[in-house]
Amino acid sequence: MLDQIHLLAAVTVLGVLEQAYFFLQVIYARRAFGISPPQISGPPEFERIFRAQVNSSEYFPIFLALLWQAGLFFHQGLAAALGLLYLYARYCYFMGYKASSSARLAPIYFSSGVLWILTAASALGILHFFLSHYVGLNVLRLLTA
Amino acid sequence: MLDQIHLLAAVTVLGVLEQAYFFLQVIYARRAFGISPPQISGPPEFERIFRAQVNSSEYFPIFLALLWQAGLFFHQGLAAALGLLYLYARYCYFMGYKASSSARLAPIYFSSGVLWILTAASALGILHFFLSHYVGLNVLRLLTA
Amino acid sequence: MLDQIHLLAAVTVLGVLEQAYFFLQVIYARRAFGISPPQISGPPEFERIFRAQVNSSEYFPIFLALLWQAGLFFHQGLAAALGLLYLYARYCYFMGYKASSSARLAPIYFSSGVLWILTAASALGILHFFLSHYVGLNVLRLLTA
Repeated sequence: MLDQIHLLAAVTVLGVLEQAYFFLQVIYARRAFGISPPQISGPPEFERIFRAQVNSSEYFPIFLALLWQAGLFFHQGLAAALGLLYLYARYCYFMGYKASSSARLAPIYFSSGVLWILTAASALGILHFFLSHYVGLNVLRLLTA
Repeated sequence: MLDQIHLLAAVTVLGVLEQAYFFLQVIYARRAFGISPPQISGPPEFERIFRAQVNSSEYFPIFLALLWQAGLFFHQGLAAALGLLYLYARYCYFMGYKASSSARLAPIYFSSGVLWILTAASALGILHFFLSHYVGLNVLRLLTA
Repeated sequence: MLDQIHLLAAVTVLGVLEQAYFFLQVIYARRAFGISPPQISGPPEFERIFRAQVNSSEYFPIFLALLWQAGLFFHQGLAAALGLLYLYARYCYFMGYKASSSARLAPIYFSSGVLWILTAASALGILHFFLSHYVGLNVLRLLTA
């Protein structure tokens, strides 16, 4: 069973490490700008880093959900590759947002695009499973026949 | 293995699409009220939409965790049906909160009720597995004997 | 298959119950301090409880991701035990933060430590799987030979 998920597991752990890096960035920013918890407002430089972390945290479960559905129902290797691309786009988003609000836009659009591809792969894979499981229709076999 | 999770996977992807819809609503609200990131405060109309999205994001991993445990350890079809009910209640919550703070209450209570049922199903299913795995006690067989 | 994940599932459901407890604490605090949604600012006593819940929510998907990778690829029993330790540390963190900002520090460091151990266990387990799957190198057998 593990050989069907080991690439997904590896990308998941990498994703966790990235989230840890984002959390550390907020801790450093809190120290640099003297903003102690539970405070969350401050100069725009701080708020951008803070919001970049919050946004990345909100998307993390969505990313994992899509990564695993796409990996299980479509193709593990493709899902893992898209997952790496997403994590790279998230890193660019975080660094961009840290610099300026507008610099977050290009990478966030890119990361959204990757998530939509993962969504499409998940939906197609699950649809294919439904068709072959309930209707007995194997689309792939039809296409290659 | 996939036939034990395909309904859960389908509800998971639907849940992701709902989260995407909520994120888009916040983006539209930011434009409509002229509130640029990283700002998160504004008129109550904006803050209600923003908070509705944040609350839905915080509950999303909890929802997925329960959906999958209930589906794996209790009954996949029932868990998926409850999952659809939860996603519908979340939609009503979001639309209610958008209209007024009080209009969020009925659907949030309903969605909490669905989550408690999923929790009970998960707990019962896992307990049943523990009993039959460690004590050799098959409660279902006892009841039907 | 379920006997490889039943301990992880049990800890997951316990984690959900803990999150539910934290959400209820925020609801009680909102009532006690008269802070109605969508408002999220108020006296420090309220903001500490609110931030304790938000922080716990942000870490919940990270915790689950590590719990399951460590349990699947390293050792289920050890991962579940570390999971219980994490949930206990989170409870202490919440209660500490409720009392004062500084009282959150010791348990948050402890809970981070547990997450790093889970990360190491996940990474080692996945690495071990990669080595034996792709290189045909079984490190455990080498060590015990």
